[in-house]
Amino acid sequence: MVDTATRGQLNKRETTSVEAEVEAQIEETSGAASVDVESLGRQLLGTWADVRREARENVKDPALHNVPGLTLTEQRERTLAQLHLLVERGAVHRAFPKSVGGLEDNGGNITGFEELVAADPSLQIKAGVQWGLFGSAVLHLGTEYHHKTFLPAIMSLEIPGAFAMTEIGHGSDVASVATTATYDPESQEFVIHTPFRGAWKEYLGNAGLHGRAATVFAQLITNGVNHGVHCFYVPIRDEDLNFLPGIGGEDDGLKGGLNGIDNGRLHFTNVRIPRVNLLNKYGDVAEDGTYTSSIDSPGRRFFTMLGTLVQGRVSLDGAAAAVSAMALAIAVTYGNQRRQFNAGSDTDEEVILDYQRHQRRLIPRLATTYAMNFAHDEFLVKFDSVFSGAADTDEDRQDLETLAAALKPLSTWAALDILQEAREACGGAGFIAENRLVGLRADLDIYVTFEGDNNILLQLVAKRLLTDYSSKFKTADAGALARYVVEQTAARAYHGTGLRTLAQSVSDFGSTARSVQSLRDTNSQRELLTDRVEAMIAEIAQKLRPASRMSKKDAADLFNSQQNNLIEAARAHAELLQWEAFTRALEKVEDVGTKQVLSWLHDVFGLGLIEKHLAWYLIHGRLSPRRGQAVSAYLDRLITRLRPHAQDLVDAFGYGPEHLRATIATGVEAERQNEAREYYRAQRASGSAPIDEKALKAKKRK
Amino acid sequence: MVDTATRGQLNKRETTSVEAEVEAQIEETSGAASVDVESLGRQLLGTWADVRREARENVKDPALHNVPGLTLTEQRERTLAQLHLLVERGAVHRAFPKSVGGLEDNGGNITGFEELVAADPSLQIKAGVQWGLFGSAVLHLGTEYHHKTFLPAIMSLEIPGAFAMTEIGHGSDVASVATTATYDPESQEFVIHTPFRGAWKEYLGNAGLHGRAATVFAQLITNGVNHGVHCFYVPIRDEDLNFLPGIGGEDDGLKGGLNGIDNGRLHFTNVRIPRVNLLNKYGDVAEDGTYTSSIDSPGRRFFTMLGTLVQGRVSLDGAAAAVSAMALAIAVTYGNQRRQFNAGSDTDEEVILDYQRHQRRLIPRLATTYAMNFAHDEFLVKFDSVFSGAADTDEDRQDLETLAAALKPLSTWAALDILQEAREACGGAGFIAENRLVGLRADLDIYVTFEGDNNILLQLVAKRLLTDYSSKFKTADAGALARYVVEQTAARAYHGTGLRTLAQSVSDFGSTARSVQSLRDTNSQRELLTDRVEAMIAEIAQKLRPASRMSKKDAADLFNSQQNNLIEAARAHAELLQWEAFTRALEKVEDVGTKQVLSWLHDVFGLGLIEKHLAWYLIHGRLSPRRGQAVSAYLDRLITRLRPHAQDLVDAFGYGPEHLRATIATGVEAERQNEAREYYRAQRASGSAPIDEKALKAKKRK
Repeated sequence: MVDTATRGQLNKRETTSVEAEVEAQIEETSGAASVDVESLGRQLLGTWADVRREARENVKDPALHNVPGLTLTEQRERTLAQLHLLVERGAVHRAFPKSVGGLEDNGGNITGFEELVAADPSLQIKAGVQWGLFGSAVLHLGTEYHHKTFLPAIMSLEIPGAFAMTEIGHGSDVASVATTATYDPESQEFVIHTPFRGAWKEYLGNAGLHGRAATVFAQLITNGVNHGVHCFYVPIRDEDLNFLPGIGGEDDGLKGGLNGIDNGRLHFTNVRIPRVNLLNKYGDVAEDGTYTSSIDSPGRRFFTMLGTLVQGRVSLDGAAAAVSAMALAIAVTYGNQRRQFNAGSDTDEEVILDYQRHQRRLIPRLATTYAMNFAHDEFLVKFDSVFSGAADTDEDRQDLETLAAALKPLSTWAALDILQEAREACGGAGFIAENRLVGLRADLDIYVTFEGDNNILLQLVAKRLLTDYSSKFKTADAGALARYVVEQTAARAYHGTGLRTLAQSVSDFGSTARSVQSLRDTNSQRELLTDRVEAMIAEIAQKLRPASRMSKKDAADLFNSQQNNLIEAARAHAELLQWEAFTRALEKVEDVGTKQVLSWLHDVFGLGLIEKHLAWYLIHGRLSPRRGQAVSAYLDRLITRLRPHAQDLVDAFGYGPEHLRATIATGVEAERQNEAREYYRAQRASGSAPIDEKALKAKKRK
Repeated sequence: MVDTATRGQLNKRETTSVEAEVEAQIEETSGAASVDVESLGRQLLGTWADVRREARENVKDPALHNVPGLTLTEQRERTLAQLHLLVERGAVHRAFPKSVGGLEDNGGNITGFEELVAADPSLQIKAGVQWGLFGSAVLHLGTEYHHKTFLPAIMSLEIPGAFAMTEIGHGSDVASVATTATYDPESQEFVIHTPFRGAWKEYLGNAGLHGRAATVFAQLITNGVNHGVHCFYVPIRDEDLNFLPGIGGEDDGLKGGLNGIDNGRLHFTNVRIPRVNLLNKYGDVAEDGTYTSSIDSPGRRFFTMLGTLVQGRVSLDGAAAAVSAMALAIAVTYGNQRRQFNAGSDTDEEVILDYQRHQRRLIPRLATTYAMNFAHDEFLVKFDSVFSGAADTDEDRQDLETLAAALKPLSTWAALDILQEAREACGGAGFIAENRLVGLRADLDIYVTFEGDNNILLQLVAKRLLTDYSSKFKTADAGALARYVVEQTAARAYHGTGLRTLAQSVSDFGSTARSVQSLRDTNSQRELLTDRVEAMIAEIAQKLRPASRMSKKDAADLFNSQQNNLIEAARAHAELLQWEAFTRALEKVEDVGTKQVLSWLHDVFGLGLIEKHLAWYLIHGRLSPRRGQAVSAYLDRLITRLRPHAQDLVDAFGYGPEHLRATIATGVEAERQNEAREYYRAQRASGSAPIDEKALKAKKRK
């Protein structure tokens, strides 16, 4: 029997030694550390740096800022007016065809768009509804006729519009929408119809109030055949904003945030539109009702159409990364100024960021935010290469969608977590609207469930990982595995996609021969993170294997029993993608001092992931208990090293006071402290300070 | 070298067997499971069940409900008017002395108060400011003169008041407030003064607009001696709500939530109040300026005064538990109705709560909510016994404060987490204000940092644990340890407090001799949870030992290096307290079927805690990897068992539609589905259903 006191000592001996080893290792590998804020800032601006700079300048204008406390009506009108300002400034048309005055610059367009979040998330999302969804549907699903006929009024905001895809009865399952578009060859019209309440279109921006048209997704039926979901351009309100005949709707009213946007519901009762209002890029109906499509498979056709709308997820990922950076800039700046005085003493207390807990709360989140920003830039590049046509094979498009489904959930969840931690780290001041954090959090909340519910997106990623796995390993043996591994490593420089596999076996992990120091080695971190994804998928694949011999119901039950594991595996995959992007970004840093600091931050991100999943690594024999302990010891020490650079690291994001607009992050706190310090100094100098009862009692006792 | 495929098979073999063992064990120990909703509901109402029932009836009144979307001004006026309604109904005076019309019922008072949250958190907190803080300060810090002079107008709301403790420069450090109250023997007045901006009183409810008086905390100075922080009754506004001479302030304006309350700042420029306005229960100043106190030590005096205000933390804990129950009632009800149709098929899809991930998201949180509710009732009983005088030794009061500092952080953080998960689980509908979740979350946000910042409260708990540890083990040897252990187990039936120690050694944990089944044994869970708290504290104590030989600065740095661990240890302690309360509540359940279901829920809570900290258990050799795996396997299976009872378990909380007021939880979803089902049935019957292109293609190929 080992009693508790003895165990305490055992723990102590073991711990001290792990910690000493960790400390020595950091010391040995550390060079001069200092951040070149300007050059790091340039790197963070990303591939479309000029557009991002211009967009940041634009959103400094108070006319574009949100004003907390407006009524619902006022806020909606203000946001609409701001959209007109964006049109005037040509700030939102970069993606449109040159033929109608655009620039055909997809990456630049999203870059500029996502910076709108610094002015007001409502402005961003209402702009996204108008030009990123409604306009994009016309652009990507329509053909030249639609571009010429509809885009100019969409671009100028003459016709605000709704993107009518989601139905009350169908959240994420677009293939099952119940609205129908039945072709009538007599009149050469489509009849748009909502058969029951569950088929009402729901949560549509611009539908509550301002929308005059909508791109409506409906089952295309002609000659008695349902050709699946297609998109139609449907006018919904007249110039006076009254509903057109057959169209009705409801206002969604107040929401948890984003109240600058008039979300609402729409329904259609045998509404007739011209045949040519079918956005016919991927499927068309001739005058006589004959259906044709360039894509024979209805399934592939559907996914191709939906795939053109991926940019919503790209821009949410970018907005989430931007808001996380802003939140940390506010909280770190305040944490570096806020201190409390001991009345009558001239020793300042520490600033709150000097407290270990405060560092533990903010610095790992700073690492995550860097990872998110670097990953987002690669995501943008991939998006641009697909949409510009530079690399747009089916596989490229699938890879892009998988990347979107992996990154958007992680970054939008992280943004909520970071905003909340920043809010709490600023205490009561964080709760006051003028300090921004609560408003941003309320607005960003819905980012985790719109443009694809995060859990469902991760499930999509997991299915892709499983498919990759089973297509490669259907008749797996060591030889096939080895060939696959080599293939993967050689062929793919950009690991944005699909199942990752190790370049080498990791079977030697957990061996005591490897010392704790290897934890900070980039290849070790990569192996640990990659191995986990692969092992999780392999394990799930094994468990699902019997499904092929089961009844449909039993197979569904079996799949359901693995749903949670699948989503966790997808999350692990997405974390790996972020880590890889951070790794590549780190390689590009040239300034030596910056590289040192950023390498610590990179390790905090990587080791933070390993710490989060430490139980898995221990249970699966990938880390020994001793190395497991070293992970947390490393994190503690790296965070201490990073603390002096925290301000530089948030400053490098490049958000100025016009973007942050948080009173607590402007220096008022430091001013107040100077005033208090001066008061106590003068009081002591004048000899008028009262004596402390405690001191008096101590004196008397002598 | 073990390649991946082989490892996958190894994993599989091992996993299957753990899972099979777990399944067999659950099967073996399961009896008939069904929830007697009524009897469980009675138990959940707690010790002051009648008061709670009455309070729940009262808050069904729409006049007390919040109305989303009001302007700041409208909302503040509505909340003030609601407070007058509470006065009319005698709903908020239970704690006051019988001499002024109260009931001197402390437990009942808090019970009734916390149910106000179902009507509107703003109403609850504004009532809390008026009667729980402002009124309580007069009651607990004042004497008969103050009770007779001030309480009647406070109780009737003739004088709304602010509780002026917090200053801009001092959040959680009340001892350092900079406002001064200097006695002037000539005029027999105190002079209340704010020396600089950092000393402004901040975030005070009722200070922005409605407050006519304030209980002001200030350094009491008389005859040149500062006797520390005392509380003074200070009129601040006249009948027309204009500030009195020397008093000024600012409105905090819009906040992230709780906008029914007019928070604001106050400052005092040499404001004179009569000597008798010192609330003099614990310290008095005679006409000639002589200071006297029944408590000689200034430190103890200060903590005694603050200790009378613990009820804020009690009621926030209760409100957080109540809101968590409401949020889960909404999300589970919706999750049990929401399903999607496959158009043209007559097979309903599963409801969303049938999905494993959805269960994993909601059911463990349901277990936490049960633990929170049971722990809260014990907390209320403890509070009542101290405040009624039934058991109010110094130790009792200290225990109560430690309990408050442990439970309030966990429950308020859990409430935010549960509200957010419930919101996401309801998708877009969760974001619409009419479904309540976003509004409740916005209001509850500040609960985690007011009435004591959660991190700072947990640090207080940790210090208490450390003190207990070091006072017992200063010269620890195995014999002393053993005696302490026996003492602890014998002497304390109610483990609300202080450091918990094991009744027996846990050194045999992790041995392969013990099979996975013991994980569900109550004593095993207790041992695992208790051992972790103790080992963490022992480890920290060891690390801090050198502090006594260090300089003040080095000792502070050493302490800071353990801050994160300390807070985690305190959290572990608080989790154990919740688990113990759940365990005791389970023992009281008589209905056999209910007991079965609740024992599963109890295991989900206990094993959920162990899963959360699994890395610790593995690193410290308390669980073998195999048993570690069994923890998650148990959770998966228990959650599956609980799923059919989820609705009963949320119904037992007893919140009706007038409390929940969430459209999505009223059955509209089921109605919509019936309508859709009927549509497709009729279409099929009429033969008018279009043929699917996919089906047509398949047919043609044949």
